[in-house]
Amino acid sequence: MYRVDLNSDLGESFGNYTIGMDDKVIPLVTSANVACGYHASDPVVMEKTIEMAKAAGIEVGAHPGFPDLMGFGRRNMAVTPAEAKAYTLYQLGALDAFCRAHNLNMQHVKPHGALYNMAAKDYALAKGICEAIREFNPELIVLALYGGELIHAAKDLGLRAAMEVFADRAYEEDGSLVNRRKEGAMITDENEAIRRVVRMIKEQKVTAITGKDIPMRADSVCVHGDGAKALAFVAKIRETLGQEGVQICPLKEIV
Amino acid sequence: MYRVDLNSDLGESFGNYTIGMDDKVIPLVTSANVACGYHASDPVVMEKTIEMAKAAGIEVGAHPGFPDLMGFGRRNMAVTPAEAKAYTLYQLGALDAFCRAHNLNMQHVKPHGALYNMAAKDYALAKGICEAIREFNPELIVLALYGGELIHAAKDLGLRAAMEVFADRAYEEDGSLVNRRKEGAMITDENEAIRRVVRMIKEQKVTAITGKDIPMRADSVCVHGDGAKALAFVAKIRETLGQEGVQICPLKEIV
Amino acid sequence: MYRVDLNSDLGESFGNYTIGMDDKVIPLVTSANVACGYHASDPVVMEKTIEMAKAAGIEVGAHPGFPDLMGFGRRNMAVTPAEAKAYTLYQLGALDAFCRAHNLNMQHVKPHGALYNMAAKDYALAKGICEAIREFNPELIVLALYGGELIHAAKDLGLRAAMEVFADRAYEEDGSLVNRRKEGAMITDENEAIRRVVRMIKEQKVTAITGKDIPMRADSVCVHGDGAKALAFVAKIRETLGQEGVQICPLKEIV
Amino acid sequence: MYRVDLNSDLGESFGNYTIGMDDKVIPLVTSANVACGYHASDPVVMEKTIEMAKAAGIEVGAHPGFPDLMGFGRRNMAVTPAEAKAYTLYQLGALDAFCRAHNLNMQHVKPHGALYNMAAKDYALAKGICEAIREFNPELIVLALYGGELIHAAKDLGLRAAMEVFADRAYEEDGSLVNRRKEGAMITDENEAIRRVVRMIKEQKVTAITGKDIPMRADSVCVHGDGAKALAFVAKIRETLGQEGVQICPLKEIV
Repeated sequence: MYRVDLNSDLGESFGNYTIGMDDKVIPLVTSANVACGYHASDPVVMEKTIEMAKAAGIEVGAHPGFPDLMGFGRRNMAVTPAEAKAYTLYQLGALDAFCRAHNLNMQHVKPHGALYNMAAKDYALAKGICEAIREFNPELIVLALYGGELIHAAKDLGLRAAMEVFADRAYEEDGSLVNRRKEGAMITDENEAIRRVVRMIKEQKVTAITGKDIPMRADSVCVHGDGAKALAFVAKIRETLGQEGVQICPLKEIV
Repeated sequence: MYRVDLNSDLGESFGNYTIGMDDKVIPLVTSANVACGYHASDPVVMEKTIEMAKAAGIEVGAHPGFPDLMGFGRRNMAVTPAEAKAYTLYQLGALDAFCRAHNLNMQHVKPHGALYNMAAKDYALAKGICEAIREFNPELIVLALYGGELIHAAKDLGLRAAMEVFADRAYEEDGSLVNRRKEGAMITDENEAIRRVVRMIKEQKVTAITGKDIPMRADSVCVHGDGAKALAFVAKIRETLGQEGVQICPLKEIV
Repeated sequence: MYRVDLNSDLGESFGNYTIGMDDKVIPLVTSANVACGYHASDPVVMEKTIEMAKAAGIEVGAHPGFPDLMGFGRRNMAVTPAEAKAYTLYQLGALDAFCRAHNLNMQHVKPHGALYNMAAKDYALAKGICEAIREFNPELIVLALYGGELIHAAKDLGLRAAMEVFADRAYEEDGSLVNRRKEGAMITDENEAIRRVVRMIKEQKVTAITGKDIPMRADSVCVHGDGAKALAFVAKIRETLGQEGVQICPLKEIV
Repeated sequence: MYRVDLNSDLGESFGNYTIGMDDKVIPLVTSANVACGYHASDPVVMEKTIEMAKAAGIEVGAHPGFPDLMGFGRRNMAVTPAEAKAYTLYQLGALDAFCRAHNLNMQHVKPHGALYNMAAKDYALAKGICEAIREFNPELIVLALYGGELIHAAKDLGLRAAMEVFADRAYEEDGSLVNRRKEGAMITDENEAIRRVVRMIKEQKVTAITGKDIPMRADSVCVHGDGAKALAFVAKIRETLGQEGVQICPLKEIV
């Protein structure tokens, strides 16, 4: 029996600013990565997001990012591992307060944007993040890129790690994502994208941009809810996975 | 046997900015109100502050404030009770993450600056704050001004409330603090200030600015560590309380 | 010959967050109030907004607000007049840099949100704001609520003042806006709203919520571009004003 | 006749947080680099700093930095050249507002911290910064590291460039500063430090860490006012320069 989680970044609105169609994507996913007030979100948005996730019965994870609201946490920042650890602890705790208030158990942690990308390549940074997670709650699952340093650090620290794949992105031979600026970085054909996802789940393989098959593991598929087209694509992935006999369930039932 | 707690605001540094002589005041107090990153502090400072408090064996409380770093949380802001609740939850959780990482149990919550003053007079706001505290952890003690709405709201919601007094401040007949701009607002004679503290503890009375004796309750005395003179005053309070047979112990042993 | 300006708040996006349909409303107005990075906007958004305004040939004004991005500058903050002055200077200068870079002369200043509302009722605060404007550039026009303290302070300091009216809002007998929470605060019938605007322009009168006619002056009408319906309403106002022989032109041609 | 400017970073306090002894260092320098509210400072501090600089008769320059108050602008951030340009324009304008209010002409621009270091090595970033300066006011002098990309970009864009040296830092053979983590990076002997400064001014040479003499140019010496020892060192530099016949005067009289 094949199983996979569908995760999406949620709760990214801030004050008077709205991003995403959270109410539309929540029914389509099993795990929500909830922004924690550094790169996006604020306490009022966090409260509302946790309420919505709980009402829908989906699992919740923290989505900590850099303290760069102006750059939405997408710009690399040269923080030290100790800073990354402290920032992660702060954001985990902040989000957890809303989980506690709503009797929810946090399921996972997935760093956001530049923090995610940097941690995938920098073991010391990844270790700082994982130390925060372990000290906060060693039961939390670390959700990250296959083969990245975050996965290595999580395992070294005794944390459970789950790997996510991207339906619309091409991979290099080493399993990393092809840079968006490179030709062929995006898988634009939806049917091909979904076929690739099914294969990553069932065969644990994907064809890299070079044409070579590489190993891959898909505990979760990252999907987006930032528009009608994105939502339709998620619905289509769900439908196809159902037809292919892949059960969609939260991370905690997989790893 | 008389007992009283000594509390002080700590961990108010931010990034490259230092405020306070935390290492000097920690040995003199029994409870620390630790800033949570809104009006002051950042995750690195919070981590360090919790470490220092734990090493010294003093109790830790959250000191949530308005999201106004530029004004140090001292300017009234017209937030709604729902916003106050969400901001309090956020900050409680953020600080608690560092307590968890260091195996400390948070003892109390004392709102900061303008949030403290506004909540003393606005029941709806006070209730928002207390709802956050109850939902987060109903064992937390609310530390606030005698007779203020925060105390009323805490009691209405079934929370334990502790009352703090100020050695260097005069009181109105209703138990509120005399506005700093009014003549006689500050008790400048140190000996008189300490005599007043002893009387508030032993007799549960204080002479208001009008000359009339009013009831007062001192579960804790708020002291400051922002200079050599302030530190010497705290040491003197400690010494006098000892001579007067007043035991200095943390809040949780009192309420 | 009757003349009136149409003003709208623009450039309120921030980082990855978009607010408003600036490209749609710009062709419909003659003056843009551009956010300056405190309650909304960032330097990249400001640059783009000034470019768009220049390309469309409309006039530009500064729209300074409180340092409260989380509250979009809509929450009262107890700042001192000296702080209000310094915050206004800072924001005027910041926006002016983009005007200079694009060879545009700033036309006016209209405080935003809570700063606008507080300054309408607090002369000392209004004076702080107007001192900043005069010290920065005494040629700038102050755009504010009829009869408010900002108008008084502007005149006392020798600045040109222009008064704006709101098509969709009811007025109290003293010329202030009826609080939104009060019944009848909003003029929901579009035709009636436009008739009122025409009368404020031509007769300098409006019927207050009490039924009594009061004096009013409309140098400018504040309009919104935050949705298709709002845009259609602005188009309808423009059309009716044209039919009524009212010329739509920027503030600087009026006061 | 030898001449040199002495520059120092000033106005780095923020809200309730104080950094530096500005009143003590102002009498010792000829040019002040004033923080603009991104990595440090706020409008009230900027107003006060400009007042103090004007009263002392020293020249003022903008000290723009990254929007990273928590990191004091000292952490590399992967901003685009367009972002760097917009951030520089914003900060130049903001500071200039206070100069205008006090009838001061801004003399120069010196990027701060990580922005300064990154711009020294990244021509595209340096060019973005210099475009902002040229569009804002082409008379402004760019103050930067000898041989860095900021100097190159300034010259390419037709701006005047001035070079600063550091008394207490060792240089690599290419003229860049030796990384602080490397042994020998700091010149700890004050007399040697001052001898090196005098030689950089008079002979336009300095001995690199490798022992080899390299060309260097000292239009300005960067000094610090963050403590009694630092202040005494500045006084000693001034005294020695006087004995050596080097006139201390502001940048604008040199380049």
